Amino acid sequence: MPAGIDLDRLVGRLDAIARHGALDGGGVRRLALSDADGAARDQFVAWCRAAQLQVRIDRIGNVLARRAGVEDQLPAVVIGSHLDSQVNAGRFDGALGVLVGLEILMTLNQSGVRTRHPIEVASWTDEEGARFNTGMLGSSTYIGRLDLDDALGRADPDDVRVRDALERIGYDGDAAVPGPPLRAYLELHIEQGSVLENAAIDVGVVDRSYPVCHLDVRFTGETAHPGSAPMERRRNALVGAARAIVAVDELIRDHGPDAKAGCGVISVWPNRSGIIPSRVGARFDFRHPETAEVRRIDAEIEKALHDAAAAASVEIEIVQRATYGGRPFHPGCVAALEHAAAARRIPTLRLATQAAHDATVIVDRYPAAMVFCPCRRGISHHPDEHVDPARIEASANVLMDAAVALAEGSDDL
Amino acid sequence: MPAGIDLDRLVGRLDAIARHGALDGGGVRRLALSDADGAARDQFVAWCRAAQLQVRIDRIGNVLARRAGVEDQLPAVVIGSHLDSQVNAGRFDGALGVLVGLEILMTLNQSGVRTRHPIEVASWTDEEGARFNTGMLGSSTYIGRLDLDDALGRADPDDVRVRDALERIGYDGDAAVPGPPLRAYLELHIEQGSVLENAAIDVGVVDRSYPVCHLDVRFTGETAHPGSAPMERRRNALVGAARAIVAVDELIRDHGPDAKAGCGVISVWPNRSGIIPSRVGARFDFRHPETAEVRRIDAEIEKALHDAAAAASVEIEIVQRATYGGRPFHPGCVAALEHAAAARRIPTLRLATQAAHDATVIVDRYPAAMVFCPCRRGISHHPDEHVDPARIEASANVLMDAAVALAEGSDDL
Repeated sequence: MPAGIDLDRLVGRLDAIARHGALDGGGVRRLALSDADGAARDQFVAWCRAAQLQVRIDRIGNVLARRAGVEDQLPAVVIGSHLDSQVNAGRFDGALGVLVGLEILMTLNQSGVRTRHPIEVASWTDEEGARFNTGMLGSSTYIGRLDLDDALGRADPDDVRVRDALERIGYDGDAAVPGPPLRAYLELHIEQGSVLENAAIDVGVVDRSYPVCHLDVRFTGETAHPGSAPMERRRNALVGAARAIVAVDELIRDHGPDAKAGCGVISVWPNRSGIIPSRVGARFDFRHPETAEVRRIDAEIEKALHDAAAAASVEIEIVQRATYGGRPFHPGCVAALEHAAAARRIPTLRLATQAAHDATVIVDRYPAAMVFCPCRRGISHHPDEHVDPARIEASANVLMDAAVALAEGSDDL
Repeated sequence: MPAGIDLDRLVGRLDAIARHGALDGGGVRRLALSDADGAARDQFVAWCRAAQLQVRIDRIGNVLARRAGVEDQLPAVVIGSHLDSQVNAGRFDGALGVLVGLEILMTLNQSGVRTRHPIEVASWTDEEGARFNTGMLGSSTYIGRLDLDDALGRADPDDVRVRDALERIGYDGDAAVPGPPLRAYLELHIEQGSVLENAAIDVGVVDRSYPVCHLDVRFTGETAHPGSAPMERRRNALVGAARAIVAVDELIRDHGPDAKAGCGVISVWPNRSGIIPSRVGARFDFRHPETAEVRRIDAEIEKALHDAAAAASVEIEIVQRATYGGRPFHPGCVAALEHAAAARRIPTLRLATQAAHDATVIVDRYPAAMVFCPCRRGISHHPDEHVDPARIEASANVLMDAAVALAEGSDDL
């Protein structure tokens, strides 16, 4: 077994990728399938090829780079994450997991380790959903949860389709989706929370994910003249939405520190000076680690939405409801991570992921688990996101050892 | 003096103009300088030319059609309004006033009436501000309140400039702005309120306008991950804006039925799934007939905005403050309208306009007043806007007689 990854090489690659889509004053904006994402992909693919990995691009643009196994027909152990980012993001969210995967395969190459199963590093397309409004787009398509044509047809706010955006940056690959079965999927990510930092532990073994719920809601009122329409006769859809946003922000605080909810996406029509808005679409999200509590929160939010609409004399409709995650990660993968940590005498902490990730989707179909490393003050989706490089090494080594162990094994997980 | 306008001819023209930008199920969307607006302008210009009026287009696209006076070098009495509409509008708002002006000039032609001063009908560019976010654009430029280059440089949400939009529809005219002085300006408009309907009076003489205040506000928070950021540490700019919208909607109701306030325009950044918004721009408008009460409302709203921002832990800045109207109309013009009505034994009611109009801007520079006719249930900026044609005739005749009287006079107003 190799002693460990080359941390300096990893940090150098993080720096290089952070240049693609760099924001003034730090952080990145590397929206999925943008020029910056394309350049980051090109760089990643070039590194993979230089490391003698066999690169394939599938039809939804996922990049998979393979280190052959001794029994190469066996399903691969995949280590991955994403290179796309939010519009106002840090440099670690996603990119760290992809580059750790590459670093592990390079370390295995240098050590001459051979594994029964192949090991691959994956860079999934559009995990953030920041451009095409659909998170975990690539991994969902890979596992067959999302239909390829549906995925390719999703549009960004400028009405550019995924299909055309992929072609434009040259990532409309030909590998089939859904993709070949995985033996196991492992993902390293920054925690985006403060549990590890507060506990002074470097390695979080993620054994479950919060169920993350999205409610897409439409408020419908009536246009009118803002000068003459009497206040008591107005049916202002924006007032309905505003009441709902305030109510959700307030009610969630009664459910303890693990409960999160809010609204971050809103569209208003006509949204013009001199006319009262008649239509507002809003996406509310909420999450809590316990399913029973999620159900209670869901019911409270639904009541709050209806009360808000009634108070503003507007109609409300819940247009779409989606839930991500909420499943436990695979006990075999979790055990492999904990064994690897124990063998290296690295203390770990079990925790849940509050955010959705590619792993929380992939576990619907294949054995999967995650490793978290601490990030400063839990800040993420903000340029101030920061990870002390020294605190990445332990997680990366644990991930490497667990991947090798899973790639050696012959039993079903 | 002619007996009166030809109501059938006027109604036929209203029908014809309503076809430009007609919405399915009634109403119109005829945004300023759109194809529909261009077609309506072309129709209007053709009618003016057929009526032997001398048409000129000025550099901001205002259309003025002139019936010569006996002493044609004297300043004109202008009758006007606008052909542009809101996105979800009725067929009368604006178009009625323009077509009444044309109808009056045709009636005078047919009766062979001669007036000392010329009389013109004006169709002002972009009264609504629905496209370029600047109401009364054409009339403000005509009187020199708005600089021509500034006006031409205003952009719509697709970043199309007024300059280019004018050129595209062929209304980048060459008549100078600010335009020649006016002897008087008269405008007929639907009331967009219920005062006349409730009083069963057909002619409203508008002797003042509500001061209409716009506050452009910016809320600034911080992006963060909606899954992991603790609720108590969030600085969600959209929650700040929502609290402000609710607060303003509530506080205004304590100021009686004449007080109106709300928010109809909002922009959110990043407005993407998976990230807490850090910036929200919002336009609040409020109005009341009494200046002292406007000041009280202004202070209350400003306090509410700050309280809302503080409750959401976000910053607030009032970026721009604009006030329209609030001036009395010209006593000489008001008297001319009332004398005309008395001579025809038509009962009138004095009232104030709650909405801003071209007349409420023009009165800053020239003598002006307005005539209102009743509209059903006060509904406006909605396809259900409706005016009983029989209830237009009295106002149009009063306006005609007042215009002729003002065009005959030699004294300063």
